[in-house]
Amino acid sequence: MTRFKLTIEYDGAPFVGWQRQDNGPSVQAALEDAVFAVCGERCTVHGAGRTDAGVHATGQVAHLDIERPIAAEKLPLAINYHLKPKPIAVLRADEGGADFHARFKATGRSYLYRIVNRRAHLALDRGRAWFIPQKLDHRAMRDGAQHLVGTHDFTSFRASYCQAKSPVRVLHRLEVSQSGEEIDILADGVSFLHHQVRNMVGSLRLVGEGKWTPTDIARALDARDRAAGGPTAPPDGLYLTAVHYD
Amino acid sequence: MTRFKLTIEYDGAPFVGWQRQDNGPSVQAALEDAVFAVCGERCTVHGAGRTDAGVHATGQVAHLDIERPIAAEKLPLAINYHLKPKPIAVLRADEGGADFHARFKATGRSYLYRIVNRRAHLALDRGRAWFIPQKLDHRAMRDGAQHLVGTHDFTSFRASYCQAKSPVRVLHRLEVSQSGEEIDILADGVSFLHHQVRNMVGSLRLVGEGKWTPTDIARALDARDRAAGGPTAPPDGLYLTAVHYD
Repeated sequence: MTRFKLTIEYDGAPFVGWQRQDNGPSVQAALEDAVFAVCGERCTVHGAGRTDAGVHATGQVAHLDIERPIAAEKLPLAINYHLKPKPIAVLRADEGGADFHARFKATGRSYLYRIVNRRAHLALDRGRAWFIPQKLDHRAMRDGAQHLVGTHDFTSFRASYCQAKSPVRVLHRLEVSQSGEEIDILADGVSFLHHQVRNMVGSLRLVGEGKWTPTDIARALDARDRAAGGPTAPPDGLYLTAVHYD
Repeated sequence: MTRFKLTIEYDGAPFVGWQRQDNGPSVQAALEDAVFAVCGERCTVHGAGRTDAGVHATGQVAHLDIERPIAAEKLPLAINYHLKPKPIAVLRADEGGADFHARFKATGRSYLYRIVNRRAHLALDRGRAWFIPQKLDHRAMRDGAQHLVGTHDFTSFRASYCQAKSPVRVLHRLEVSQSGEEIDILADGVSFLHHQVRNMVGSLRLVGEGKWTPTDIARALDARDRAAGGPTAPPDGLYLTAVHYD
């Protein structure tokens, strides 16, 4: 038996999310079915992060165990052959070692959130970015984001039904940059609570619109109450870009 | 009556191309229908370039005449309201002046061709780039492209059914750049023959694969024979990014 580490890209739009569910197609189920087609083994593909419906990935990581001998470098093309035409692609496969675990061994996760800030709706980026027609002040958003960096109780920015035991998380970086009509928000942390990135982005949008000041972000954080945080940004603009391991 | 200049973005995938045709939905027909819904006038929307089926635009330009008084700055939102959910967006409208003509007054056109060069098929960029799994040498492609810059008879790179009177065109720039797994080709010229960009890119791909040397591009150009040029690249990677006027 070999444990493999897969790096995976997907368009989240047609899926109910990463996790296998009864109510529709999931990325996990598509991968497990493709692996079965490749080697005849029913295995579980364990993802590093359970992305929600509509959330994309350019660098999701997962692990799985395969009994049949197969070379790591042959695995992506073999799995991809059976994934097509679904918008999921295995970018690479590596032997992970028997104690590798995509989720529990991860030491960090990186997300990108894309906002397109212009008056006209999106033609090419539909479903791939958050369309915001109101003019945003990206410098104010950047100032607001700084209040969230560090180790904090993120209760104000977690989904009310989030099941994590602790609301404390380590956020290494929350960087707002602007280029043309696009505003990108990069989030690096050890791990994230359910909807944490989308709730932080939804709050920063209020700062960008001038409805909140940058320090209102600190006030919301200190409240430790979901009702004090801003609304949840849509999944369209969110990309899991990398999972880090020691 | 006012003549307006529109700047337009669209995803070419669901359309038979820019031009109104009997065999399916076109960008032009969608715009003309939306203008009719806005002001009750049946007008012709004249595009600067007739993009083919599947070809995208981030900066197509068109003009149209409207009898009813309407402010240019209100036109994009009004037209866009009726375009949704089609993946077409009017980015801006300006008064063009009575003698403005999107096609005949254009002094230059810019195209971008996106190639994704990696082994795994495309999940997020499907239909938005040309997926090429064979390793390409972008430096050789860059060298080959230089042979096409200038004023030449481009017969070897025009569609056999191209209806332009002269095969001579002025190509200001054909720049190949590489970033990560993406190879971008920027083409700037006064105007282009039918399929010219896609045929140039299809030929440069042969150079990138090592099947042609960079100087084979010059040889193909000199032949003035479509049979001497390379195959036509797919529309997926092509974007009309700008049309220039004095």
